[in-house]
Amino acid sequence: MKMENQDTICAIATAQGGAIGIIRVSGPNAIEITDRVFITSSGKKLAECLPYSISFGQILSTQKEVIDEVLVSVFRAPHSYTGENSTEIMCHGSSYILQQVMQLLIRNGCRSALPGEYTQRAFLNGKMDLSQAEAVADLISSSNAATHRLAMTQMRGGFSKELAELRNMLLNFTSMIELELDFSEEDVEFADRKELCRLANHMEAFISRLVNSFNVGNAIKNGIPVIIIGETNAGKSTLLNMLVNEERAIVSEIHGTTRDVIEDTVNIQGITFRFIDTAGIRETTDRIETLGIERTFQKLDQASIVLWVIDSTTAQFQYRTLFEKIMPHCVGKKLIQLFNKTDLITSEQRKLLSDLAGNADHLHISAKQEEKIPQLEDLLVQSAALPQINQNEVIVTNVRHYEALVHVLESIHRVQFGLETGLSGDLLSQDIRECIFYLSSIVGEVTTEEVLANIFKNFCVGK
Amino acid sequence: MKMENQDTICAIATAQGGAIGIIRVSGPNAIEITDRVFITSSGKKLAECLPYSISFGQILSTQKEVIDEVLVSVFRAPHSYTGENSTEIMCHGSSYILQQVMQLLIRNGCRSALPGEYTQRAFLNGKMDLSQAEAVADLISSSNAATHRLAMTQMRGGFSKELAELRNMLLNFTSMIELELDFSEEDVEFADRKELCRLANHMEAFISRLVNSFNVGNAIKNGIPVIIIGETNAGKSTLLNMLVNEERAIVSEIHGTTRDVIEDTVNIQGITFRFIDTAGIRETTDRIETLGIERTFQKLDQASIVLWVIDSTTAQFQYRTLFEKIMPHCVGKKLIQLFNKTDLITSEQRKLLSDLAGNADHLHISAKQEEKIPQLEDLLVQSAALPQINQNEVIVTNVRHYEALVHVLESIHRVQFGLETGLSGDLLSQDIRECIFYLSSIVGEVTTEEVLANIFKNFCVGK
Repeated sequence: MKMENQDTICAIATAQGGAIGIIRVSGPNAIEITDRVFITSSGKKLAECLPYSISFGQILSTQKEVIDEVLVSVFRAPHSYTGENSTEIMCHGSSYILQQVMQLLIRNGCRSALPGEYTQRAFLNGKMDLSQAEAVADLISSSNAATHRLAMTQMRGGFSKELAELRNMLLNFTSMIELELDFSEEDVEFADRKELCRLANHMEAFISRLVNSFNVGNAIKNGIPVIIIGETNAGKSTLLNMLVNEERAIVSEIHGTTRDVIEDTVNIQGITFRFIDTAGIRETTDRIETLGIERTFQKLDQASIVLWVIDSTTAQFQYRTLFEKIMPHCVGKKLIQLFNKTDLITSEQRKLLSDLAGNADHLHISAKQEEKIPQLEDLLVQSAALPQINQNEVIVTNVRHYEALVHVLESIHRVQFGLETGLSGDLLSQDIRECIFYLSSIVGEVTTEEVLANIFKNFCVGK
Repeated sequence: MKMENQDTICAIATAQGGAIGIIRVSGPNAIEITDRVFITSSGKKLAECLPYSISFGQILSTQKEVIDEVLVSVFRAPHSYTGENSTEIMCHGSSYILQQVMQLLIRNGCRSALPGEYTQRAFLNGKMDLSQAEAVADLISSSNAATHRLAMTQMRGGFSKELAELRNMLLNFTSMIELELDFSEEDVEFADRKELCRLANHMEAFISRLVNSFNVGNAIKNGIPVIIIGETNAGKSTLLNMLVNEERAIVSEIHGTTRDVIEDTVNIQGITFRFIDTAGIRETTDRIETLGIERTFQKLDQASIVLWVIDSTTAQFQYRTLFEKIMPHCVGKKLIQLFNKTDLITSEQRKLLSDLAGNADHLHISAKQEEKIPQLEDLLVQSAALPQINQNEVIVTNVRHYEALVHVLESIHRVQFGLETGLSGDLLSQDIRECIFYLSSIVGEVTTEEVLANIFKNFCVGK
């Protein structure tokens, strides 16, 4: 699928504001175009330089003014990220300089790169498969050990290996069935049906595991949703700020300060939690606030852990009413009751509240004084109950992969059903072909412009 | 002044959020430490690699997990930015990865670099003088052609050359005077007093030019201050938003919406203007607003251009009163009168207003409809009246340099006075020594820890 006659592209590959800025140039004329704007201090042309070498020199404007003193790296096809000739220009990190260099390159024949175009070229030039290319974006956005490990495993081909294994199974399957078809008139059965059943069951288990891993993968990638609910002024926003360690939500003494649902992710002991602060639950006539409370209950349905913050100073009067409101929404979720403002009540009152909570998970905390917060974090980590991930285990984190695998699983189920009901070989093989199609779409062996556009539009420019 | 036995430092040199992140390592053990955390795909150690070469490979954690696939550049002392051994690690731009690599390097013997420490080492190792080092920070923060050119000239030693010339003059001066001192008992006068006077006058002119260039340099670097004043609701904020092309100031129909003084810089035809929006001038009992109006008059004193926005629909009644209030503050400034909301009045009324303004610079505009804005921009550029800067002319933009030059100038004045009044040679030479001291402080030939700390604290980390 190698692309010919590509144009040469350029892009700023670093974020604005650092000490150093990098411009990447890639394409058949990358080295020649860079030579037109860059004078090495040695006087040598980049075209004469060794690949994987760096040259110091000046970028000169068309008026021969020095735009910057830079380092330029040279790479030659196919030994580069894109598989094409390319250069990387390391400038001083001024946005003015970077813009000037970009303009110069464009005036000399480059085109400004689209988001993800470098990685797309790497894919089209066979430097990586599609699932590896997708992992590049995940790797860049990885923000903790778990997401980093998943992306790195996938980028280094971990996922592709599993898929190759799956494909081998399917090829085994079809070869047996297609052998039968060749001899269909003789009504022989080369493929032992029992053997085929065994293989189909094995595949079903294999793919189910991958499909199921998506739940874990998604929790790792996007965080485990934890909703913070409770009465107005119970201290929900103070708790959120405490957990995320910044002034994310506006805190005030005024009841009903939080109207929007506020979200933030935090890493606690290596697990990402997505905290969702909500409008306080109370009877209100404020229309905007009522909307907020409705949204609270909607969000509650999406959470796996519910933190119910209760104002200890008023809990005695409100507990029962609220409990009845909240409980119906907490089925199948982990509920943690937090008696907040515990510093304002006596130890006897505290005992009374513990009795109210009974066996349910609860903690006496003071969000304002940051009391018992480590215990709360421990409780959250326990409640997360993520299965331990084996370093070598493949976890599906990508929705596109997940959807393709669900299609594969459906086809396998049809194959299993077909085997049970004695379906003819040609119909069986149709389902298997569908399996292979969806598997191939994951690594990009079959793909469309649209699929590619969808994948790479989420990349940043310069990658 | 070369530093020995430095430790090895590391820092992230790119801003957070790009496709690529760079970590710089510099110091005697830079290559060895990088070798401890990096495995080249060729199996070769970096210590064996050529300087100015790039190696592809993996950064491995202490648990031998792959943290990233990276490119590493190798530089050897003294042929590097800092003049020390150094490496640059190009990672995927994930902040998690960059942090992990930093931690690994630190665990293997690096220290996290201080702001500007790379450039400071370059200075201490004689790769550049102090004024060149300072220009690096200016270069990175340069945001337009003018600031970029000033910083680039200075970084490439333009300023240092001028200073060398000054020093030669001073040495000439002292050598003549000190020759006299050696023969003081014989009461000869080797140094022709007329010749000395000529030299002193030449130097005085030379340094005066540099000192005076600071006004221009400062205007280029920080923008020409333009204040927007006028009655409440005359459309000042609408005009500011129009000029800066964004919703910077809150605009409303309510009189007195703008209370704070709002500033923003805009580049018009290559010149930076610093626009200052102000609270409207009117009689008010609102205490906060009164404070705002007081500040308006304070700011007015600092501006070089005054844009007086007048509501055309009410101008006839207010013009005279306001004119008398404003004029005393506009002495020595360029005043431009803008009859705003011109779309709401007839052409006859327009003529009436033109008559009111008389010969003074004025325009009929509609900020809301963006009418006549290009004409206003032209008028601003004319009013800026910045002297054309010769590409090779040195402009002082740095306050530290300016202050040192003012001291030099004072000493020269003392020398001139001494020559006029027949001051003895040893006293003259004392003043000249002071001149040399201040000049040397600019390029850093004499400097203190405190001066260095002050300079480099304003750098970003990684530079």
